[in-house]
Amino acid sequence: MKLAVLGAGAVGRSVAELAGEYGHEVTALADSTSAVVDPDGIDVAAALALKDESGRVGSATAAEALDAEYDALVEATPTTLGDAEPGFGHVRTALERDRHVVLANKGPVAERYEDLRAAERDSDGRVRFEATVGGAIPVLSTVESYGPETITAARGVLNGTANFVLSRMAAEGLGYEQVLGEAQDLGVAEADPSFDVNGTDAALKCAILANVLHDGGYSLDDAEVEGIADLPGNALDLAAEDGRTVRLIGEATSAGVRVGPRLVPENGTLAVSGTRNIVQLETDHAGRLNLSGRGAGGPETATAVLADVNRLAE
Amino acid sequence: MKLAVLGAGAVGRSVAELAGEYGHEVTALADSTSAVVDPDGIDVAAALALKDESGRVGSATAAEALDAEYDALVEATPTTLGDAEPGFGHVRTALERDRHVVLANKGPVAERYEDLRAAERDSDGRVRFEATVGGAIPVLSTVESYGPETITAARGVLNGTANFVLSRMAAEGLGYEQVLGEAQDLGVAEADPSFDVNGTDAALKCAILANVLHDGGYSLDDAEVEGIADLPGNALDLAAEDGRTVRLIGEATSAGVRVGPRLVPENGTLAVSGTRNIVQLETDHAGRLNLSGRGAGGPETATAVLADVNRLAE
Repeated sequence: MKLAVLGAGAVGRSVAELAGEYGHEVTALADSTSAVVDPDGIDVAAALALKDESGRVGSATAAEALDAEYDALVEATPTTLGDAEPGFGHVRTALERDRHVVLANKGPVAERYEDLRAAERDSDGRVRFEATVGGAIPVLSTVESYGPETITAARGVLNGTANFVLSRMAAEGLGYEQVLGEAQDLGVAEADPSFDVNGTDAALKCAILANVLHDGGYSLDDAEVEGIADLPGNALDLAAEDGRTVRLIGEATSAGVRVGPRLVPENGTLAVSGTRNIVQLETDHAGRLNLSGRGAGGPETATAVLADVNRLAE
Repeated sequence: MKLAVLGAGAVGRSVAELAGEYGHEVTALADSTSAVVDPDGIDVAAALALKDESGRVGSATAAEALDAEYDALVEATPTTLGDAEPGFGHVRTALERDRHVVLANKGPVAERYEDLRAAERDSDGRVRFEATVGGAIPVLSTVESYGPETITAARGVLNGTANFVLSRMAAEGLGYEQVLGEAQDLGVAEADPSFDVNGTDAALKCAILANVLHDGGYSLDDAEVEGIADLPGNALDLAAEDGRTVRLIGEATSAGVRVGPRLVPENGTLAVSGTRNIVQLETDHAGRLNLSGRGAGGPETATAVLADVNRLAE
């Protein structure tokens, strides 16, 4: 399929770089201020090299990328809250043109699920968003295969940065600020890590899970969210004395969406270490499924995007 | 869709019982000597009650079930090796009638993969077989989503009976024969558990994985297989002294198919306990995915069958 990729951060870059390997072609690539468009396929390496040099991917405008020739729009611009703009507008424009949309941007799916599905209903295009929950982990395709109505709850570790901080604090006995600084040095945490450590990012993913399980009705405002920054210094020590540790656990259950630090068994399934994520799905007839892997990262998230593109191409 | 279910063991029964909940209808159900057929949908509860009373599901013959009106044939008769008959013949008949086929029977997929795909190519029907590897765990749909060519290896614990025996032996310090007897009393091991404990069952699943990853070329004969019956009595103790334990691990890699007892870290991802299964997929761009859950059982395996039916209905 021909792909227009909006967003040239880690995910957008990786989608553009890996598309050819999956048998697809990139006809447009845009960052927030520039774009490169070619109906016969852009030169991805050249565009990314140009961006590294000059800060621009090409001489076209981002609006031209949205109007380009493509079968599927890959929306990988930064997640925004509330009206989820400009991502939501990009999605609507592509659907109005009867094109498919694959989202890595969580905003439209977490914050405006009903609007998203309404726009899809009016279109010949379809919307997929595996990459928005759990990075490379096939969470949403599993929910889809098994039928959302047969899944009674989803819970897990959905933010790699917070998990890295908690696992380092527990393993090394270090303080929150020190580990967070280390994570920033390693590139695991962003300069402004607030969405990761205050639970917002995990809550967006849980709102998406809740929307999929219950066919809409949730947004960040509906979530009960607590982060890890205010975790008492001795909480991890007290947990360890009892064979347990602390993880930032997100849940989407019939009771709603909740995110917060929870005690979990030290060697238990939920106590993944480092930046790994895990999702547990409770099913009606098949017990509990555990799905774990890399929850973030450019190539990892791009793999989930391209799996969605493959599904749309079937 | 209308389903004909061949096989009225644990899996076939559960498929028939759960089909309605997934929006499908059972028009035929057969065990090895009898069948019940109704183009408007059979009374599943009555057929299964009759089988419990009389040993027969109805007054029709098994051949009539194969000729019945259906959109997809669910092949859930016992796995056989070599020519994989009579399962393979059932599959071929359905494909010749341009009907879809969903397999829970491992034989045709492990032993005659090329024949299976050739029969599918000549048909308007398609073949799916999620239930043959890892029960409820979405292993093959994940491989399909991500693209078989992007998965470099698969490994894991693929037999719940052998895993139950090994985890009980390690946890309780009991001997092989004693734990196996206990497993038989609990219904976890069959009266003849040889396929489970000698590695055959896990090897069939690995041959299926290898066929999917490499587009054919494997059967049980190509697998290097070692079971758990001859594990030295002190192997688990020696492993435990070193923080490790023993699991029956199956692998499908570029080097081929291997199954045998291996040392794994005691609290590591592969050391699932009891009858749980786990599959690790090594990917080109997304690191390692871990998928775990219930690898066997009627409703669990039926869930995978019905997920395949849902995919075919799309």
